[in-house]
Amino acid sequence: MTEAAVKKSGGLAGVTAGETAISTVGKEGVGLTYRGYDIYDLAGHASFEEVAYLLHYGSLPNRRQLAAYKRKLMKLREVPPALRRVLETIPGKTHPMDVLRSGVSYLGNIEPEKGFGRQRDVADRLVAIMPGILLYWFHYAHAGKRIRTASDEDSVAAHFLRLLHGSRPDAAHVRAMDVSLILYAEHEFNASTFAARVCTATLSDFHSAIVAGIGTLRGPLHGGANEAAYELISRFRDPEAADTGLRRMLAEKKLIMGFGHRVYRDHDPRNVVIKEWSRRLAQQTGDRKKLFPISERIEQIMWNEKKLFPNLDFYSATVYHFMGIPTELFTPIFVCARTSGWSAHIMEQRGNNRLIRPTADYTGPGRQAWIPLKDRK
Amino acid sequence: MTEAAVKKSGGLAGVTAGETAISTVGKEGVGLTYRGYDIYDLAGHASFEEVAYLLHYGSLPNRRQLAAYKRKLMKLREVPPALRRVLETIPGKTHPMDVLRSGVSYLGNIEPEKGFGRQRDVADRLVAIMPGILLYWFHYAHAGKRIRTASDEDSVAAHFLRLLHGSRPDAAHVRAMDVSLILYAEHEFNASTFAARVCTATLSDFHSAIVAGIGTLRGPLHGGANEAAYELISRFRDPEAADTGLRRMLAEKKLIMGFGHRVYRDHDPRNVVIKEWSRRLAQQTGDRKKLFPISERIEQIMWNEKKLFPNLDFYSATVYHFMGIPTELFTPIFVCARTSGWSAHIMEQRGNNRLIRPTADYTGPGRQAWIPLKDRK
Repeated sequence: MTEAAVKKSGGLAGVTAGETAISTVGKEGVGLTYRGYDIYDLAGHASFEEVAYLLHYGSLPNRRQLAAYKRKLMKLREVPPALRRVLETIPGKTHPMDVLRSGVSYLGNIEPEKGFGRQRDVADRLVAIMPGILLYWFHYAHAGKRIRTASDEDSVAAHFLRLLHGSRPDAAHVRAMDVSLILYAEHEFNASTFAARVCTATLSDFHSAIVAGIGTLRGPLHGGANEAAYELISRFRDPEAADTGLRRMLAEKKLIMGFGHRVYRDHDPRNVVIKEWSRRLAQQTGDRKKLFPISERIEQIMWNEKKLFPNLDFYSATVYHFMGIPTELFTPIFVCARTSGWSAHIMEQRGNNRLIRPTADYTGPGRQAWIPLKDRK
Repeated sequence: MTEAAVKKSGGLAGVTAGETAISTVGKEGVGLTYRGYDIYDLAGHASFEEVAYLLHYGSLPNRRQLAAYKRKLMKLREVPPALRRVLETIPGKTHPMDVLRSGVSYLGNIEPEKGFGRQRDVADRLVAIMPGILLYWFHYAHAGKRIRTASDEDSVAAHFLRLLHGSRPDAAHVRAMDVSLILYAEHEFNASTFAARVCTATLSDFHSAIVAGIGTLRGPLHGGANEAAYELISRFRDPEAADTGLRRMLAEKKLIMGFGHRVYRDHDPRNVVIKEWSRRLAQQTGDRKKLFPISERIEQIMWNEKKLFPNLDFYSATVYHFMGIPTELFTPIFVCARTSGWSAHIMEQRGNNRLIRPTADYTGPGRQAWIPLKDRK
């Protein structure tokens, strides 16, 4: 993009804000990679724990390292009593993203980061505890139930489903969740990661940066899109109704969430993977509400009419739904995954820090003469 | 700055990240203005409430509008019982900035923003309640005392000092605090404001954006500088000891906080104002510890040796100290002031929104072939 085009489009589109060795997003001839590994290899063969380790440590763990890492995460899951008491006071109608924002901020009060020397431990603690903060509040707020926040499940994916449903999760669901966490783990200088880096660059603490990430991811133009996608898909009775309804929405210039991307130009490589999981879980569950064919019809129309492709959020919506996950927890799952990417970026920013402080074009009034209060109309 | 120079220096230095009509910072021939009004006029004649009104509404209030605005802020000061109970559980050794981060986040749980239509009310609530959140926790955590969070003081400055000291504040202190709040209120795309705008640009809620601002301001390269400045100044017995000590620190390449600025090149216009208040309060209190002459000596050496000038943070340190404010509350006062600027930027960003999502230069490994777990060394 030329400098003039960048300036005109705004939002720092196409502007380089720094360096990263963590991932490539839509880079020509490379696509999406984490530390050089192709997203298809990671989603096809790795576990989320392998990916988190890769993001934080820079290389894939061997069997011993992975086993030790999984044990470490398992030990760091418990929500401390003081935080549980705070979560119990948060009203049930609160947006779960706001609960996570407050929960992580409060965790930073009772378990503050003391210097940057133990930052990896803080990152691991946050990855491990996130499902517990979310689901402890969820069960208490909606059913008055105080759940245990530890489990004997050895993966974040299974642990999440176990805390949510209270029973040992289905193997296909665990793998679908695992893949979803991998796909959502990291995505270069997206808005929430960038917010976390801006915060980190003042040499603030780890919790402040993660809290900035959560608050930023909350917006419907970022993480909130998967919830909006489900609301769209579930609104229609069948593909024909979706066809009519969607065309009407497009004619009314309504914004359709879950399509297009700031960086990807013709497709989102993550969509290929998550769509197959949506298809598979639709077959497994029977898909009584025809959500998968409705989704495919929406995808087709969006491409034919607007040349817009589904991004990761679109088919994630049905994948989560088929696993029995309430819609309001979709974006919080994104947090559980992206905490690993945010953490990698916080550590990278600290490793080669410079304050992130851009400038602005001034469009306001020229110099105003002072008018004393008594003389103002 | 040329494009190549910008790229090399990093941190988006000199890069335009958007438009603003709120303030100019160091603009040639204009200097620092809020909505076109010179900072010297504002610091010389206005109250913080006039400035907050100016920032939020775009023009100075008349007498009736100002009186109504001050009454509104007075009514919005009380910390709700649920939040007070949470504040009571935050340990006394917690960084007060972390308390504000959690306090505002929790306020967003119990008083969520419902749509953007009432955003001005959310902004006013946050400006009004901030001293109460801070000082309720402060007195409870350090003395087990549950203070009232309302007062009959009609300005934020006097209200803050009243809650802190529990008695009607000295008139010179109130004006010094008022001026300090005006000087700290707004500063274009500084790091915390920029973080708040990145968050806002995903269409997230007001509290998330303010929380991102607080977490970002917390860092020693941003808001934390006034606390570091006091620690430096108060370390020396007299100007001669400061002379020797500072030269030793410079020889050891130690970073001296409170000097220089990303945007200002040869002076910080706010320093002229705050330095005079430091001098005046030094005279009023007698300055037994010689903090003002020590500060002047440090200023002189930094200019002679490094050509670095004091920024707002440097003399703010002694101004606050002379008013009996504990050092750990210096950066939180910055929050009380900057909440007005952050709020103006959140509303401006929403008024002409575009997702803020830059890109990064990739410096990581090339494509890596997948290695199955069992084959890894």
